Amino acid sequence: MRSVAETPLSRNGRSILIAMDHGLERGPSVFESLPERADPSTVFDVATHDAVTGLAVQKGVAETYYPSYEDDVTLVAKLNGKTGMVMGDRYSPPIWTVENAAALGAAAIGYTVYTGSNREADMFKEFSRARDAAREADLPVVLWSYPRGQGVNDHDAPDTVAYAARVGLELGADMAKIKHPGTREAVEWAVHVAGELPVLMSGGASVSEEAFLRDVHTFMRAGGRGLTVGRNIWQRENPTATLDKLEQLVYEDAALDDVI
Amino acid sequence: MRSVAETPLSRNGRSILIAMDHGLERGPSVFESLPERADPSTVFDVATHDAVTGLAVQKGVAETYYPSYEDDVTLVAKLNGKTGMVMGDRYSPPIWTVENAAALGAAAIGYTVYTGSNREADMFKEFSRARDAAREADLPVVLWSYPRGQGVNDHDAPDTVAYAARVGLELGADMAKIKHPGTREAVEWAVHVAGELPVLMSGGASVSEEAFLRDVHTFMRAGGRGLTVGRNIWQRENPTATLDKLEQLVYEDAALDDVI
Amino acid sequence: MRSVAETPLSRNGRSILIAMDHGLERGPSVFESLPERADPSTVFDVATHDAVTGLAVQKGVAETYYPSYEDDVTLVAKLNGKTGMVMGDRYSPPIWTVENAAALGAAAIGYTVYTGSNREADMFKEFSRARDAAREADLPVVLWSYPRGQGVNDHDAPDTVAYAARVGLELGADMAKIKHPGTREAVEWAVHVAGELPVLMSGGASVSEEAFLRDVHTFMRAGGRGLTVGRNIWQRENPTATLDKLEQLVYEDAALDDVI
Amino acid sequence: MRSVAETPLSRNGRSILIAMDHGLERGPSVFESLPERADPSTVFDVATHDAVTGLAVQKGVAETYYPSYEDDVTLVAKLNGKTGMVMGDRYSPPIWTVENAAALGAAAIGYTVYTGSNREADMFKEFSRARDAAREADLPVVLWSYPRGQGVNDHDAPDTVAYAARVGLELGADMAKIKHPGTREAVEWAVHVAGELPVLMSGGASVSEEAFLRDVHTFMRAGGRGLTVGRNIWQRENPTATLDKLEQLVYEDAALDDVI
Amino acid sequence: MRSVAETPLSRNGRSILIAMDHGLERGPSVFESLPERADPSTVFDVATHDAVTGLAVQKGVAETYYPSYEDDVTLVAKLNGKTGMVMGDRYSPPIWTVENAAALGAAAIGYTVYTGSNREADMFKEFSRARDAAREADLPVVLWSYPRGQGVNDHDAPDTVAYAARVGLELGADMAKIKHPGTREAVEWAVHVAGELPVLMSGGASVSEEAFLRDVHTFMRAGGRGLTVGRNIWQRENPTATLDKLEQLVYEDAALDDVI
Repeated sequence: MRSVAETPLSRNGRSILIAMDHGLERGPSVFESLPERADPSTVFDVATHDAVTGLAVQKGVAETYYPSYEDDVTLVAKLNGKTGMVMGDRYSPPIWTVENAAALGAAAIGYTVYTGSNREADMFKEFSRARDAAREADLPVVLWSYPRGQGVNDHDAPDTVAYAARVGLELGADMAKIKHPGTREAVEWAVHVAGELPVLMSGGASVSEEAFLRDVHTFMRAGGRGLTVGRNIWQRENPTATLDKLEQLVYEDAALDDVI
Repeated sequence: MRSVAETPLSRNGRSILIAMDHGLERGPSVFESLPERADPSTVFDVATHDAVTGLAVQKGVAETYYPSYEDDVTLVAKLNGKTGMVMGDRYSPPIWTVENAAALGAAAIGYTVYTGSNREADMFKEFSRARDAAREADLPVVLWSYPRGQGVNDHDAPDTVAYAARVGLELGADMAKIKHPGTREAVEWAVHVAGELPVLMSGGASVSEEAFLRDVHTFMRAGGRGLTVGRNIWQRENPTATLDKLEQLVYEDAALDDVI
Repeated sequence: MRSVAETPLSRNGRSILIAMDHGLERGPSVFESLPERADPSTVFDVATHDAVTGLAVQKGVAETYYPSYEDDVTLVAKLNGKTGMVMGDRYSPPIWTVENAAALGAAAIGYTVYTGSNREADMFKEFSRARDAAREADLPVVLWSYPRGQGVNDHDAPDTVAYAARVGLELGADMAKIKHPGTREAVEWAVHVAGELPVLMSGGASVSEEAFLRDVHTFMRAGGRGLTVGRNIWQRENPTATLDKLEQLVYEDAALDDVI
Repeated sequence: MRSVAETPLSRNGRSILIAMDHGLERGPSVFESLPERADPSTVFDVATHDAVTGLAVQKGVAETYYPSYEDDVTLVAKLNGKTGMVMGDRYSPPIWTVENAAALGAAAIGYTVYTGSNREADMFKEFSRARDAAREADLPVVLWSYPRGQGVNDHDAPDTVAYAARVGLELGADMAKIKHPGTREAVEWAVHVAGELPVLMSGGASVSEEAFLRDVHTFMRAGGRGLTVGRNIWQRENPTATLDKLEQLVYEDAALDDVI
Repeated sequence: MRSVAETPLSRNGRSILIAMDHGLERGPSVFESLPERADPSTVFDVATHDAVTGLAVQKGVAETYYPSYEDDVTLVAKLNGKTGMVMGDRYSPPIWTVENAAALGAAAIGYTVYTGSNREADMFKEFSRARDAAREADLPVVLWSYPRGQGVNDHDAPDTVAYAARVGLELGADMAKIKHPGTREAVEWAVHVAGELPVLMSGGASVSEEAFLRDVHTFMRAGGRGLTVGRNIWQRENPTATLDKLEQLVYEDAALDDVI
């Protein structure tokens, strides 16, 4: 594991990453409630907030919009992806090479692995190659560690989420993004079995700001190192206000009542 | 994304591409109504029209006929393809390398991806490799963005077409060819979610010239940047006449009534 | 397309190729009626006839027998093949590399593609690589263009055969071998949609010499450029006599009555 | 076969390897009974015991924890792995390259092959490549030889275990880890058919210390060269005490009664 | 084809090869009747008999035992293999590279192809690559030509065996090992359709010595060039005695009655 504490991905060992690969993964219907956010520039703007330590986007979005933000945004190159249309065994193919991501100025790579899928083995091989290339390019590796598929009954059950965290450690990621498993105890167990690997909370579908901040608070108190968030930021009218609150919870250990 | 505005594919930021890979994709029955058009020379001749900014053909047709037209026609190398005979999951394999296309004098590459097919992942990988090779060769990339297969109920529904447009942006194409989703609003949404990516209308099966021009007009008014057209040109007795009208609609923002 | 008119494969733009890969493709039962013909030397001897512009054999047969005939026979390296025992989706894997074929002295390569098979895509990719290697080695490419498999109801129907001819043009072959589709009109259509690509008649199973010559005559009058023939030559007691007649029909435009 | 007798993996021709890849292979539930052992450091500490000749861990665990133990622990790089979530045909993909393992300081590689699985062939190929790379890097190869899958009814039956041992010899491993087949006679047969290949007992699920030591004693008396053990060490409160006893059984040929 | 007549594999154009890859292919139960023969040294000892022109073993056995016999035994590197546990379509993957086999001192390579299996195409490709590498390394190639699988009803029927022999010629082997098809006439036909390719009898399961020698005698009188034998040698108490008799039948054209 590379320590991410001294990379731009981290601020005092904590991270808030914004993800915006949903245009590919879920399709533009995610932008229907706030059409302006379909324009990646608006999310790059959001990502200039001081609380944000990285923005994860796909190849084409990065290539098109990142050059205008290279002084203000830390780029996480999301290397693999799929559409939400595709059926069959869960599998996310590599679309972007580490070499190209590094040439564009990426500060880290992001990669999804669907553990438990019938194509787990293919993703283990391809993730491993990407990870090794990232080592060569001196880029840290963030694993989207997502149990899914035939072998997975309940992908946010505590045991499943703890397994996901441990997979990040075993495969050699430098950070892992996992689902919130529901309770503080469940997060603590996931954090514990991840060993030295920093664990980030996956933001998931939009919920009320209060419910979201409550989840983040629990996650951080249980030893989490931050979060990766998409829809719960850019599907809000005022993402900056939410980021201000996240900043307090994640970096300043604020009490929940002081923030809500 | 590379700006195509300053490449031969574009005239003032708009494009009319002619496609003629139907001999492979659909078979020579497409030539039965006008047998002379089976001869690619006749379509290369059509493509010398000033309105036409590129002609997309397969490897063998390009190699055989393009050398006689290299001063008058802009070649788009259609890199992958399949026959209409083949069954099973939709998949279009690479037939032509970017290196060979560049050596022949191609000004751009074209590539079909069937998003939503059970082989989407294979096409994402292969498209990505072709795209990266095109960057090396300094050729812009036109994506035939076609949702098809098990995961796609209605391939020209507005949501599906908007998704297809967004996929072009996310995967890093320089232009995307999408179906006309029916209404101006639907085109506007697709254009919007494509961000900076120029979107071209796919010509589709032959319809009356008036119906066709009406579709083109709607598409352009909704923010489209032009079209890729095959049968609606070379299945007509007088393709030049139709191109004259397209020229007015696409490049000169002519009113529909002035053209029909 | 490379012009084959000035290569040894062609005599005044016409060709008679003998094929003898049936030992692999159909098994030695093809030799039961004339056991001596199991010995490839006997067919190499036949191929020294002036009418013959090439002999297509598999790797092992070429390597073993061609060196004794290199001054008298033009070698077509049949690069891929399968046995007649194998079931499942039609697919013919590459067995021989273009580099090795060229080193042995081959003047051209031959390659079978089963269009319409569920493995069409694999064959398109592998054929394309072989074709490009043949360009590097300056060898013309003869496509055995055979629609077969789940997507093909009737492999010698006129539409299917015309499609096969067109596939040869689109994929970038230099000659294509197709089935005789039955009528002169059907051959003319196949020849027409093949554009500049020379089309050869596939000999097929043994029939009476008269029936065979009648087919060849129709094929040539309809614009065919010759034939590839196996069993209708080397399953005959006196192949030389048949070749004398073919020579008249193919190269000298003889009337059928003058030959039969 | 390379002799492992003079490598750090062996002490007088015998070995006690500790394995701790269960976080990946079975998930963190294996740590529930003794949560502190989820921390790999605690197992690295255990592995500093004089009786231990190697510690086998996955890529990420090795990279993160081994550097602090490089003077005190002999690292066995477990190159392939899978989760316990995945269903379908048994298959363990390569995750780690031999080159990277050697660069980190590994003294040997470990590799699982599920003989009898429908993906046996893939594992034979990948194991063979890893083995050859290990030869290049001068690292001995330990095979986890595990018959599993459609073709295997009873994976610890004497015939099956003997087959597993022989596979190690035939494939060119330097040591093989096999299940205890139950009786001394069965172990003797497995040891016999392995020829010169040293055979290690697989520790398996936790049992009482007495039952475990009894198995080890039988295995050693039957010609075994040691064991690879995970849960029967690090799932115990006092692994050192158990290792003291194993040391006597494995290296000093102690009588069972003197140890229990 | 390379002539094997002047290689160590041949003595006056005839060969007796011993095969001992059964530990992998069938498992150690083949050694139960004579347990000492599980030790490869005992079979290497047998292979020092003057009648034996080669010993075919797998990678690990060769690497471990051949160095002690390199002056007395001619090594045939059996490059591919599978266990008898595996189910599904017949397929034997490459385990050993030609380069490594040559470096160890192999005088030839051996390779199994299951013609008619649903994976025939994979084996054709992999055999072809191995064959070409063997040409580079100047090693002759012995094909274990075994029709098996969905497309094969009766793998030792005369037609099937003749087909197997012809496949060896077509694919470019230098010798082929085929089943005894039962009668002298059937062997003669197989030998005939193999052309210049030398054909060896496959020894098969143990039978009485007389029955075995009778088969060998028929095979040689019908034009066979020798045999490859495993169990009918090393499952006998006195393999040397049987080899003495084989020597007379294979190299000295002895009458059967003089030998039995």
